[in-house]
Amino acid sequence: MNSYGTLFRITLYGESHQNAIGVVVDGVTPGTRIDLERIKADLELRKPKAIGTTPRKEDDEPIITSGVFNGYATGSPIHIMIENKNIKSKDYEHLKKQPRPGHADFVANEKYRGFQDYRGGGRFSGRLTAPLVAAGAIAKMMLPYRFEHEIIQIGTLKDMTQIDSYLEDIIREKDSVGGIIKVTIKNVDIGLGEPMFEKLDAELAKMMFSIPAVKGFEFGTGFEGVNLKGSAFNDVLINDKGKTKTNHSGGITGGISNGNDIVFKVFIKPTSSISKEQQTFDFKEQDIKTLKVGGRHDVAIVRRAGIILENCAAIVLADAHLKYIK
Amino acid sequence: MNSYGTLFRITLYGESHQNAIGVVVDGVTPGTRIDLERIKADLELRKPKAIGTTPRKEDDEPIITSGVFNGYATGSPIHIMIENKNIKSKDYEHLKKQPRPGHADFVANEKYRGFQDYRGGGRFSGRLTAPLVAAGAIAKMMLPYRFEHEIIQIGTLKDMTQIDSYLEDIIREKDSVGGIIKVTIKNVDIGLGEPMFEKLDAELAKMMFSIPAVKGFEFGTGFEGVNLKGSAFNDVLINDKGKTKTNHSGGITGGISNGNDIVFKVFIKPTSSISKEQQTFDFKEQDIKTLKVGGRHDVAIVRRAGIILENCAAIVLADAHLKYIK
Amino acid sequence: MNSYGTLFRITLYGESHQNAIGVVVDGVTPGTRIDLERIKADLELRKPKAIGTTPRKEDDEPIITSGVFNGYATGSPIHIMIENKNIKSKDYEHLKKQPRPGHADFVANEKYRGFQDYRGGGRFSGRLTAPLVAAGAIAKMMLPYRFEHEIIQIGTLKDMTQIDSYLEDIIREKDSVGGIIKVTIKNVDIGLGEPMFEKLDAELAKMMFSIPAVKGFEFGTGFEGVNLKGSAFNDVLINDKGKTKTNHSGGITGGISNGNDIVFKVFIKPTSSISKEQQTFDFKEQDIKTLKVGGRHDVAIVRRAGIILENCAAIVLADAHLKYIK
Amino acid sequence: MNSYGTLFRITLYGESHQNAIGVVVDGVTPGTRIDLERIKADLELRKPKAIGTTPRKEDDEPIITSGVFNGYATGSPIHIMIENKNIKSKDYEHLKKQPRPGHADFVANEKYRGFQDYRGGGRFSGRLTAPLVAAGAIAKMMLPYRFEHEIIQIGTLKDMTQIDSYLEDIIREKDSVGGIIKVTIKNVDIGLGEPMFEKLDAELAKMMFSIPAVKGFEFGTGFEGVNLKGSAFNDVLINDKGKTKTNHSGGITGGISNGNDIVFKVFIKPTSSISKEQQTFDFKEQDIKTLKVGGRHDVAIVRRAGIILENCAAIVLADAHLKYIK
Repeated sequence: MNSYGTLFRITLYGESHQNAIGVVVDGVTPGTRIDLERIKADLELRKPKAIGTTPRKEDDEPIITSGVFNGYATGSPIHIMIENKNIKSKDYEHLKKQPRPGHADFVANEKYRGFQDYRGGGRFSGRLTAPLVAAGAIAKMMLPYRFEHEIIQIGTLKDMTQIDSYLEDIIREKDSVGGIIKVTIKNVDIGLGEPMFEKLDAELAKMMFSIPAVKGFEFGTGFEGVNLKGSAFNDVLINDKGKTKTNHSGGITGGISNGNDIVFKVFIKPTSSISKEQQTFDFKEQDIKTLKVGGRHDVAIVRRAGIILENCAAIVLADAHLKYIK
Repeated sequence: MNSYGTLFRITLYGESHQNAIGVVVDGVTPGTRIDLERIKADLELRKPKAIGTTPRKEDDEPIITSGVFNGYATGSPIHIMIENKNIKSKDYEHLKKQPRPGHADFVANEKYRGFQDYRGGGRFSGRLTAPLVAAGAIAKMMLPYRFEHEIIQIGTLKDMTQIDSYLEDIIREKDSVGGIIKVTIKNVDIGLGEPMFEKLDAELAKMMFSIPAVKGFEFGTGFEGVNLKGSAFNDVLINDKGKTKTNHSGGITGGISNGNDIVFKVFIKPTSSISKEQQTFDFKEQDIKTLKVGGRHDVAIVRRAGIILENCAAIVLADAHLKYIK
Repeated sequence: MNSYGTLFRITLYGESHQNAIGVVVDGVTPGTRIDLERIKADLELRKPKAIGTTPRKEDDEPIITSGVFNGYATGSPIHIMIENKNIKSKDYEHLKKQPRPGHADFVANEKYRGFQDYRGGGRFSGRLTAPLVAAGAIAKMMLPYRFEHEIIQIGTLKDMTQIDSYLEDIIREKDSVGGIIKVTIKNVDIGLGEPMFEKLDAELAKMMFSIPAVKGFEFGTGFEGVNLKGSAFNDVLINDKGKTKTNHSGGITGGISNGNDIVFKVFIKPTSSISKEQQTFDFKEQDIKTLKVGGRHDVAIVRRAGIILENCAAIVLADAHLKYIK
Repeated sequence: MNSYGTLFRITLYGESHQNAIGVVVDGVTPGTRIDLERIKADLELRKPKAIGTTPRKEDDEPIITSGVFNGYATGSPIHIMIENKNIKSKDYEHLKKQPRPGHADFVANEKYRGFQDYRGGGRFSGRLTAPLVAAGAIAKMMLPYRFEHEIIQIGTLKDMTQIDSYLEDIIREKDSVGGIIKVTIKNVDIGLGEPMFEKLDAELAKMMFSIPAVKGFEFGTGFEGVNLKGSAFNDVLINDKGKTKTNHSGGITGGISNGNDIVFKVFIKPTSSISKEQQTFDFKEQDIKTLKVGGRHDVAIVRRAGIILENCAAIVLADAHLKYIK
């Protein structure tokens, strides 16, 4: 299903090559100032512009059809629609015959029994992250928290000053790379989240893995923390507001925000679509054959993903804020 | 809240030092053979026995009060209760004054305004994982899949043949360590999970972070995959059943199980409770003071956690199986 | 919130005088034939045409923006949008001052603190039933059941051949009437619904009271059954398919469909908006004053409501069908 | 499934003849005073004592195993268990052969494929209303509202002073009767409930039909209101607190509580189990045969149902209160 949240709830729809994609945002506090320009600004950050991003350009013009009156949320669901305009009508039929490695072509065909809209990746397309960003922009308008993100690794590159030349090499190789993004949320209330099945870290984890291409998620020190002993890992409380000396736990203890910065890292796998020739099973020939994927693709989707992670985190926190902060 | 699942739904209750902990398991297919011995066997795997585990011994005798008739699930909720017997009634009041580093003491006190049952960690105690294991044992009775787990790292140790002597050192240091566990699920159907907010990886992620002390989660190659290019990362399909040459994606594509083994790794942080002296903020003295945590603790909870992860994964898959496999 | 359903889930949005109203229909079985003409035909039945219905005419042209490909459901959410075109921009500001009796003006203003879109009743408008009808039309495409409805009383009138002349009198009196509608569902599977909180009658009850103006709901004999003793009320089983001699229980036993026709009656209160002068509290004058409600209204909304009840019942049954019939 | 509620959530378990029935009550505000005596007092009101009630006597001793500490709710789920003690182990096997008219025997056997615990009605037994009453007692401890109920009709009897002699006649006839109960909730906040699918009347409707034997539900005037015109039905606002001159709408407008008393009526069908001989289909003989139902039964369950309705309403209002009143 395509809904997330309890008191702040979003419902997504759309596929890459249909008329529109969109989102219904329910539970926005009446009286929240809704600034269309901020939605546009966040969508702008997601757009492919830099080296390593797809040549498919979409206007991504958000249209609000309901739920806003005189610039304020009415308390009714806010519906935001984005039309798909830049659609190249090429033949995707062959994907049934030759499912692309790393893509959902094979599972989609099994699951939806051939009825899925396979054009441009259909519902598995990264396009669906545009309404997510729009919904997250609204979530941020409801919250007093500050959201930041930072790419800390692309492929094997950790020095972000060399990113353009590194990606030019990848483009030349007709290949792709993944990356790791760190998200930081500041000024967070104590008390967001609750055991056993509404823990804030668990909700953030679920949301992050809902974003296409995410394959790893960790808080604070993350997996590296395995090398620390308890005496080193434990974050020492240093004042009565819950401030800790270190933040190895990433701002969440027992599933509940502890007032320190929430810090997590997300691994985004290398973009599946590459220009290089690949092998895959050919269902018609019943043998492994060579495949050349056409279309327009990012070679480093991670370059556009930061705002998606950030805004998706905001969706989770908006729901938690409504639930736990009175 | 303390419920998880849509068609297979568990509801947990209990605190460390109250009369009982337990779980209501709803949605079990009527006619499922319920074998109490298998529940006991899984609970046995969670019990502290080896070096590095807590001296608090509990019988963990599961009592089924309803939902089973003549050895089969009736279709009504199955209620399993486990009494808390081995409770040491010592004074925990001081935890309000001196919240333990790495523990939920501080956030619990803020969130529950002093009304929480703080004895033995209350609802944040690892004891709550016993009913999770019991519920997961029932989930496994409904599923044709095979679940396995393996500790791949404890502290800095990767060679598991040396585990006892390594942990004896940690005990001598009055410290603790975390670890990394790999879970593998075999013989999985194609088609479990669904975009956008019921993806199988997202549900597994949510469940894993619901388990106390989990701080990292990754599929297949996990974060290491950042060093691979797309051409190397993409799993090549080699037959018409969806079998892939490699399994970098850990058995899930686009949020949907692809028929290959589901493989994920979980990072469990070092046990927070250590015998070593630590610093923490003292709310009475309004200054940072030394704290000595008493009680009975694991120094490597990871040694008992494998069955918890495995059975929690089974809970997720039981729900997915009911939803997606007809 | 504005979502209903577990496996078949609809999410509504819209307000009377904003750009659009619509619905996202999630969980439609991939491969379901989606016939836009049937959606239009059902919307046509809801339109005001007969005597006693509002002069506000809307095209109610459903636009499907996603989820349908080559005429079949893809498995992705289906989004149906209906633009609001025939909007009279008059002044509704006075409703804050003089809340209309029987309307939600007062509670809306309290609850949404003045931010609600009060034009034309906003989200409380009967317009929102148009996307409900559209969603129900899709539900019916998934189901092998037959849905029928029948007005059995309008105001004090029980002989439906006199309806036009009866309503002409009501119009002359500048007043309005309510009514009772009977819905029958045929060819229903045994086994829909489940104790304790997914009973089919309970779900139908919830859905019916979600429809504006509904104030009563009863199965089979309904309240009249109080005059029967158990020996007369009990429906006697007459074959091994569950067929009963009578159907006092309205086709549902223990919350589960029993294979006989599902029969229920719904009471729709008299339309609140009347042309006649009424009294109400004037918030500016701080006294009870006379109010004259303008605008365009139905005097017997019940005349258009049958298709709404029928299609809303289909929404409930589509969800139940996906849950309980394998 | 057996859970109800979003922020205040109850999960029921149990069957008539198993070891225990019970309920997990999640979301109770930490610090709520939990008075076991009030739970017992409400359970007492449900007990069979008066003429026309069953001879099966149960202690109905509620045991709280968790979630309460020093007399206050901790914020953890409260688990209340009631043991089944007075169980007569007779043979119920024949119910598969001869399903009782008006009972769930037939549908249960179809749905649960013979695995259901059919003893004493299993999960369809009225026994399950005991934990509902207990959960409702806790809900009332969280709420500032007052709950009342009143039987307004039993069988054809409307004068409640004659109830004992009337029921003695019914007992002599070996028959049973139903009834109508009116519930009133006073001192209610304005603003509980929300369109489109969290309307307070819809939630109350769902809850009431979840109670065994309920077949009709109406607000305010109920179905009788069909005889009123709009000018008479509309409740005139008489002050700025939302007080209305009449209360035909039963305290709810547009799905939202309007601050007047919430008033609704519930029709409970005649008890299905009667001592009189009845006809039913015999699955062994494959023909309609005579059946004599043994066991211990109420002839007027309505006599004990008031507290059930009242407390179930409290469950709905506790959830709404947490959602809508800050």
